[in-house]
Amino acid sequence: MNEITSVSNPRVKQWVKYHDKKHRDRDGLFLVEGEHLIQEAITAGLLTALIISPDCPYQFDFDGECYLVSEEIMKKLRSTVSVNTCVGVCKVKDSNVTLGDKVILLDDVQDPGNAGTIIRTAYSFGFDAVVFSGRSVDIYNEKLIRSTQGALFHMSVLKAHLPDMIHKLKQMGTIVYGTSLHEAKGLSTFVNQQKTALVFGNEGNGVSEAILNLCDDRIFIEMNRFESLNVAVAAGICCYAFRKQDL
Amino acid sequence: MNEITSVSNPRVKQWVKYHDKKHRDRDGLFLVEGEHLIQEAITAGLLTALIISPDCPYQFDFDGECYLVSEEIMKKLRSTVSVNTCVGVCKVKDSNVTLGDKVILLDDVQDPGNAGTIIRTAYSFGFDAVVFSGRSVDIYNEKLIRSTQGALFHMSVLKAHLPDMIHKLKQMGTIVYGTSLHEAKGLSTFVNQQKTALVFGNEGNGVSEAILNLCDDRIFIEMNRFESLNVAVAAGICCYAFRKQDL
Repeated sequence: MNEITSVSNPRVKQWVKYHDKKHRDRDGLFLVEGEHLIQEAITAGLLTALIISPDCPYQFDFDGECYLVSEEIMKKLRSTVSVNTCVGVCKVKDSNVTLGDKVILLDDVQDPGNAGTIIRTAYSFGFDAVVFSGRSVDIYNEKLIRSTQGALFHMSVLKAHLPDMIHKLKQMGTIVYGTSLHEAKGLSTFVNQQKTALVFGNEGNGVSEAILNLCDDRIFIEMNRFESLNVAVAAGICCYAFRKQDL
Repeated sequence: MNEITSVSNPRVKQWVKYHDKKHRDRDGLFLVEGEHLIQEAITAGLLTALIISPDCPYQFDFDGECYLVSEEIMKKLRSTVSVNTCVGVCKVKDSNVTLGDKVILLDDVQDPGNAGTIIRTAYSFGFDAVVFSGRSVDIYNEKLIRSTQGALFHMSVLKAHLPDMIHKLKQMGTIVYGTSLHEAKGLSTFVNQQKTALVFGNEGNGVSEAILNLCDDRIFIEMNRFESLNVAVAAGICCYAFRKQDL
């Protein structure tokens, strides 16, 4: 265990930079905090360094680099809303991932809490991958990671050009459904197919017409009053309806 | 239009206090902000005072008390995360409300974003009332109100003793379902009844055993992987399944 007490230590300065997307992207590294997420990162083989403060009560089965840091340093590493005593530095997953039979596509979803909750929900219902459009929120945003409750480490999560991805999915025999309030069929009229992709859109604008035009069909969630749903709630309802059928 | 420029004006001091639950409860008043929520409050007949800053671009059809305040005062009245130029003082709704056929009960739900999203979702699916247990988050929490997107003004939302409420609902012929991960039947096996109440629980602990024991039946949402769902997502899936059938 290496001990660090100075906030101007070069390693500390490097880690603090990972609060910023630019540095995460450059180094392919990101931070997670708290016992649960660190355990998940270890299990997934993605933890590269473990950092704990003196009052950390947890034991981790990790044989990589470990650092004991002062409370002052820990404050700089954890997010402002937490009181965690442990932080992990993780490497981003290989982007050369398999998509599987059940895929979620996010067309410019902006809110990290929504995106993280969608990953968590998709994982629970047996989805294999979540694909973010280029202008969606950063996958390694700290609030997003917290909202996934660790599901991020268990499934394929990647950024991609959505039109290319839809083309690829269709070639694989996957039926691609866009969610839309207009010119769409009610969710309850669809039959759950084995190979399904569902597209959810930006909080303000929904799925763009350009993307909807590439989809095989359009779904709307039947509502009694014409109100919009929160995108994570809409995704939950659709993921449940199209959940993986265990064979 | 009355003009106020001093932050120590007694009215300003009074309004600022409504960021705090204690003062909201004492006076039966709460704050909303932004054009959409103020319009909804006017339509619902609950706005008692309208406060705008000089750069407010909106026109409101409101014949009650109006105040033009300095930007400095507006900053104190709006929530820290917003740049709104208008704030309204609203009175809380009469707690002597009708429950209707479709009711949501929240057993110690703590997160204002979750509770607000549940109100928004319940309204979309034709639910008539949302009942908070005594230890749930405050109904008039500012983040909660924002998350409802105005649905708070359109349906019955109240705090009550849940066991008494369940007893009352059963006497009305309403079937009360508790959500639970244990000793429960899959959601897809239930038939949507006209008079339904659904109970959702605390983010960490779910619905308490004491409340579950008062319910007519227990529901679980079928998942492929044993993970918990966010409570607002779980509520969305159940509200959709039990949505009001238009007659």
